[in-house]
Amino acid sequence: MTTKAIEWLDNKLRILDQSKLPHRQIFIDLSDYQDVVSAIKTMQIRGAPTIGVAAAYGIALGAQKIAAENKDRFFDEFGKILEAFATSRPTAANLFRAIDRMKKAARGNDVSEIKRTLIDEAKQIHHEEIEATTQLSQLGAELIKDGFTILTHCNAGPLATAGYGTALGVIKAANEQGKRISVIATETRPLLQGARLTAWELKQADIPVTLITDSMAGYFMSQGKINCVIVGADRIAANGDIANKIGTYTLAVLAKENNIPFYVACPTSTIDPSLSSGAEIPIEERSPEEVTH
Amino acid sequence: MTTKAIEWLDNKLRILDQSKLPHRQIFIDLSDYQDVVSAIKTMQIRGAPTIGVAAAYGIALGAQKIAAENKDRFFDEFGKILEAFATSRPTAANLFRAIDRMKKAARGNDVSEIKRTLIDEAKQIHHEEIEATTQLSQLGAELIKDGFTILTHCNAGPLATAGYGTALGVIKAANEQGKRISVIATETRPLLQGARLTAWELKQADIPVTLITDSMAGYFMSQGKINCVIVGADRIAANGDIANKIGTYTLAVLAKENNIPFYVACPTSTIDPSLSSGAEIPIEERSPEEVTH
Repeated sequence: MTTKAIEWLDNKLRILDQSKLPHRQIFIDLSDYQDVVSAIKTMQIRGAPTIGVAAAYGIALGAQKIAAENKDRFFDEFGKILEAFATSRPTAANLFRAIDRMKKAARGNDVSEIKRTLIDEAKQIHHEEIEATTQLSQLGAELIKDGFTILTHCNAGPLATAGYGTALGVIKAANEQGKRISVIATETRPLLQGARLTAWELKQADIPVTLITDSMAGYFMSQGKINCVIVGADRIAANGDIANKIGTYTLAVLAKENNIPFYVACPTSTIDPSLSSGAEIPIEERSPEEVTH
Repeated sequence: MTTKAIEWLDNKLRILDQSKLPHRQIFIDLSDYQDVVSAIKTMQIRGAPTIGVAAAYGIALGAQKIAAENKDRFFDEFGKILEAFATSRPTAANLFRAIDRMKKAARGNDVSEIKRTLIDEAKQIHHEEIEATTQLSQLGAELIKDGFTILTHCNAGPLATAGYGTALGVIKAANEQGKRISVIATETRPLLQGARLTAWELKQADIPVTLITDSMAGYFMSQGKINCVIVGADRIAANGDIANKIGTYTLAVLAKENNIPFYVACPTSTIDPSLSSGAEIPIEERSPEEVTH
């Protein structure tokens, strides 16, 4: 059974605090949109598709609590909520796509109809991510042959997608098809999503996993121990340039040097055709303390 | 002033416990050769040249305590000491070169002359490393231009060499020549020698340093922020193949991809002409707990 990264409970959002995994599985109920913004900023919720889903629900949650009956005043408040989410994380395309969809969905004869519509739209966004990640995982699994050892970086599983997973989804689907595969997961400094989340999710799925430091990936590739690399993505520009967790470029260069196939798995919600190249993708710079503490 | 990684105090060896840096500067006096072996194994002393110097002193220390007056019985005991050091770490060429030199130096009319000779030889090995690292640093500094930003991996400074340093020696010498330089140091998982030792040594030398996770090096290179890469080495085969801290190959591939000069700084004691290629260099595999704990 897949752990739910995020769940809508009508008047609140239940999230699994990913910052505490794998040692503690703590679910938190958020009933205020600012708490959802905060959970995204502090990476209690993370992963591009999950961030998009969380923002959609968070916007719906915030909208429910707007007291104004007048539509103009409602939209004044609503605009502030959208803005709060837009500044929560800079890189994930799914976040901005979700905000845009929620903004466009905020239509109706009166405020209460708008509020209902927003909940429906957030649920729809979540539903679509589950569908998309399940389908892409089935398609991607065709690339995985029996006996493959697959390298992955950071975490792109159910936790990151609020669905079936992207990179880990492909791996899970290949495993479910009966292929004997094993995974080498980078620990992914500084926040160790590989060590804390990917290794944990793979253990839950009974898929053999070896944890390595980020700097070991090249050695494993040069020794012929990796059959392919699969990662997720935070945003993809129109020319195919990809932004993902720091270190992904390094793995791509190493894979090229060693003639190892390198795959990026993501739903279309991660593609941002408005950007002509990766140079335009805003790269998040977080607190130096995440490295030193 | 340079902190002494290792110091011979006639009847004991004083070492700076590198496993406790930078938070605590603890010097330990070792008067038993087994304690020196243990300090090398646990990486209280580390860095290829320092390991060689420590082994030489440790062998001399062990020899002093052999009770036998008879030369044959002395050499029986002495052989056990050499063997203990030979199995302490597998990769550093300097270790095996030092053991070989100490074995050859164990000559004399009687046991007490042999004991004196061994102390002299250990001091000579230390002296040569100081001379060699000072000279190579001066030579290497010619490669560094004013305004350079230099990437280095792991730690190859005075702590690692019991002398002036290799990679960090070159950087220090360039700085002393008045060149304005800055360093980007990888943290070097799993034992964080870059974060704990390199950043600390550079701060002591008043050289600007930025600490990054290992996975960030590629990003900095691709952004044109690195002028050259300098690393040390544990062993160099006859064909020029190099073994150094895990992750060095990755940096070399990234430097090649980005047309960035990549330099390896080491004394000749690190070169092992008996190996035809790097494939013959024994690569150390340490406890998995160094990654997970």
